[in-house]
Amino acid sequence: MKARVFVTLKPGVLDPQGEAVKHSLGTLGFAGVDAVRQGKVIELDLTETDSTKAEATLNDMCEKLLANTVIENYRVELLP
Amino acid sequence: MKARVFVTLKPGVLDPQGEAVKHSLGTLGFAGVDAVRQGKVIELDLTETDSTKAEATLNDMCEKLLANTVIENYRVELLP
Repeated sequence: MKARVFVTLKPGVLDPQGEAVKHSLGTLGFAGVDAVRQGKVIELDLTETDSTKAEATLNDMCEKLLANTVIENYRVELLP
Repeated sequence: MKARVFVTLKPGVLDPQGEAVKHSLGTLGFAGVDAVRQGKVIELDLTETDSTKAEATLNDMCEKLLANTVIENYRVELLP
């Protein structure tokens, strides 16, 4: 089973990478960009076939390794 | 209009970050992880309200700045 995990900074947490992208887009002539936030996407291939179990495992992985839950939110998406 | 851009390494391109995550998951006792690939997700707030124009602009942004098209694929997603 394939899965995607999205890890993004919580609102209010400073995002220098996103600010740098926003500034560079302005320099390149792209107007009308109000805000940019950058996060991570992690694609996993799991041998688990039960979607409930897979989701539980993925949430556990996020809590323990993939996300820093103090400053980051995560979202798990199972692919068919 | 809000949009998300996903930037992932092309298949076959070495992904040391993904390999490190895979290894760490193994160390933490998560078995059954076949492959891990890590990419970026960029969330943008655009003033543009026309979805066709916004998509064209986002593709242009990816080609010029957000993705390195030699080694990376990108996907644009407009949020309602």
